[in-house]
Amino acid sequence: MEFTTEYFGSLVEQALENIDYPTTAPKLFDPIKYTLSGGGKRLRPSLLLAAFSALSHKNPQEAMNQALGIEMFHNFTLLHDDVMDKADIRRGRPTVHRRWNENAAILSGDAMLTMSCQLIACCAGDKLQDLLSIFNTTAMEVYEGQQLDMEFERRNDVAVSEYLEMIRLKTSVLLACSCAIGALMAGAGRDVVKAFYDYGINLGLAFQLRDDWLDTYGDPAIFGKEIGGDIVNRKKTWLLINGLSEAGEELGGIISENLDDRELIAQVVRVYDRLNLGERCCLLAERFSKTAIDALENVELNHNAREFFIQLALKAANRSH
Amino acid sequence: MEFTTEYFGSLVEQALENIDYPTTAPKLFDPIKYTLSGGGKRLRPSLLLAAFSALSHKNPQEAMNQALGIEMFHNFTLLHDDVMDKADIRRGRPTVHRRWNENAAILSGDAMLTMSCQLIACCAGDKLQDLLSIFNTTAMEVYEGQQLDMEFERRNDVAVSEYLEMIRLKTSVLLACSCAIGALMAGAGRDVVKAFYDYGINLGLAFQLRDDWLDTYGDPAIFGKEIGGDIVNRKKTWLLINGLSEAGEELGGIISENLDDRELIAQVVRVYDRLNLGERCCLLAERFSKTAIDALENVELNHNAREFFIQLALKAANRSH
Repeated sequence: MEFTTEYFGSLVEQALENIDYPTTAPKLFDPIKYTLSGGGKRLRPSLLLAAFSALSHKNPQEAMNQALGIEMFHNFTLLHDDVMDKADIRRGRPTVHRRWNENAAILSGDAMLTMSCQLIACCAGDKLQDLLSIFNTTAMEVYEGQQLDMEFERRNDVAVSEYLEMIRLKTSVLLACSCAIGALMAGAGRDVVKAFYDYGINLGLAFQLRDDWLDTYGDPAIFGKEIGGDIVNRKKTWLLINGLSEAGEELGGIISENLDDRELIAQVVRVYDRLNLGERCCLLAERFSKTAIDALENVELNHNAREFFIQLALKAANRSH
Repeated sequence: MEFTTEYFGSLVEQALENIDYPTTAPKLFDPIKYTLSGGGKRLRPSLLLAAFSALSHKNPQEAMNQALGIEMFHNFTLLHDDVMDKADIRRGRPTVHRRWNENAAILSGDAMLTMSCQLIACCAGDKLQDLLSIFNTTAMEVYEGQQLDMEFERRNDVAVSEYLEMIRLKTSVLLACSCAIGALMAGAGRDVVKAFYDYGINLGLAFQLRDDWLDTYGDPAIFGKEIGGDIVNRKKTWLLINGLSEAGEELGGIISENLDDRELIAQVVRVYDRLNLGERCCLLAERFSKTAIDALENVELNHNAREFFIQLALKAANRSH
C-alpha cells in the first residue's frame, strides 16, 4: 500500500462516485453530486484513511464510509457558507445557488448533513457512540466558528486570541475529527486518539495561517490566484488583526479610505512589512506545524506512516499554493 | 400518570426550557431558543412519549432526549422551510430570517439539525443503531417531500397519487418516526414498532387532508385564520389537484384569470362543490383515521393508552381548527 495523499485521495474519489442516492426525488441529489464532483484535495478523508492505515493492517475500505461522511460534511459546510457569503464561484465553477437557486442550495445542503450522519454511523458497531459524539461535537464547533467569523466581519477590535479560536473552530476541529475518527476506527486507545486529534488541530492552524500569508505574500503565478484579495475585502486575517492591534490608527485610516485596489494593497503591505507581520505569520505557522509533529511523537508508527504525517505538517506551513 | 397530549406536551415544554446550549458563540443559539419558544402543539414529542408510556412502565423522562430531538428536528425544518417559502410570520411572530437575517436562519437551522442528532443519540445504548437508522431515513424522506412540494408548485399535472406520496414524505413520516422511536425506546419488538409506525403514517395523512379541507371549508371564527388562502396561492392541495384532474379546463381557466381574491375563491369553491370534493376529502381523511386506529388493533394496550391513540386519530380527521 502506498502511503500518500494521492493514493488515499484516489480511493476517496472512486468511492464518492459509487455513492447510492435515494430515487424518490432525484432533483434533490443533483446539486449534491455536482458539489462532490468539484474536486478538491480530499484532505480530510485522506487524513482519516491515513490515520486508520497507520494504526491497523486492515483494508482502508473498512473506514471508507466514515471518510465519505467527513467529505460529505465538509462539502455541506462549503455549500451553505457559499450561500451565506453570496459567493459566485467555487473551484472554478458556479456555486450551487448560482447554478440552481438558493432553495436548492439550502435543501440539498440539509440532505448532505443527514447523509454525512448516515455515513459516519454506517457499520461502526461498538464504536458508534464515540464516533457520533466526536462527529456531532465537531459539527457544532464548525457552526460556532462560522458564526464567529461572520460576527468578526462587523468588528474592528478582534483580538488575536479570538481569531485563533475562530480558525480552530472553523477549520481545525474538522481536520482533528478526521484524524481521531481514523484512529477510533482502527481501534486505538484514548491516548492515541487524543494524539491524532491534537495533530489535526495544529495542522489546521498551520494551514490556515499559511493561507492568510499566501493571500498577501504568495507568488500569483504559483498560488493560482491574484494576491491581495483579503486586503481588498478587509477580511479579518491574522495579518490584518495584528496590524490593527499594533498600528490601528494608521491601518484603520488606510482601509477606510476609498483607495483603488492596487494602491490599497501597496499601502497595507507597507504597514505589514514595517511590523514584520509576514515573517511573524510564517513563524507562527511553523510553530503549529512543529507542535503537530510533536503530538505524534509518542505514538508507535512505521516509517512510511510517520513520514506521511510529518511531510503533511511541513507542507501546511511552507506550501506556495 | 395522565394520558393526554396536554400532559405530555407540558413535560416537553419544561424540558425544552432546560436544554443546555454551548457558550462559545451564544448568538448562534438565540434564533434556536426563539424558534423553540414559539409554542405549537408539541404533537410529535407527545406522540413519542405516549407510545413509550403505552408500552412500558418507565418514567417518560427516560425517552425525553429523543422527544426533544424530534421536536428540534421538526422546528429546524420549519425554520429552513420559512426561508425557502419567504414566509414572514410563524405562529404569530416574525420568522427567524425576518427577525434576524437569512444567514442566521440557515446557520442556526444547521445547528438545530446537528443538535437533534445529538439528542436522539443521547443515552440510547444498545438501541442506538436502530434509532439513528429510522431517524436519518426519516430526515431524508422529509427533504424529499419538501423537494417534491416545491416541484409541484411549478406543475399543473400532479397526480393524486403523487400528492399523497408527497404529504406522506413531508408530513407523515416524522409522525410515524416519533411513534416508532417511542416504541423502540420502550423495548418493543419489530411488529409493535411497525404497528406504531403505520399508525403515525395514517394519522399524518388524515391530519394533512383535514388541513387542506379546513383551509377552504373551515369556519374562520374557529379555524383562527382567513379561509381560501390555499386557493389564492394556487397551492396544490388535494382539492385543487382533484379539481384540475376532473375539471381541468374550467378550473385552470379560473385560476389563471386575474380575479380578485373573493371572486376567485367563490368561483373555485363552486367547482369544488359541483365535484363534491369537500365531502370526498373528508371521507378520505376519515378512512386514513380508521386505518391508523386499526394499525394498533393487535397491539396490547391498556384502556387509557388505546383511547389516547383512538381519540387523536378521530380528532385529526374531524377537527375544526
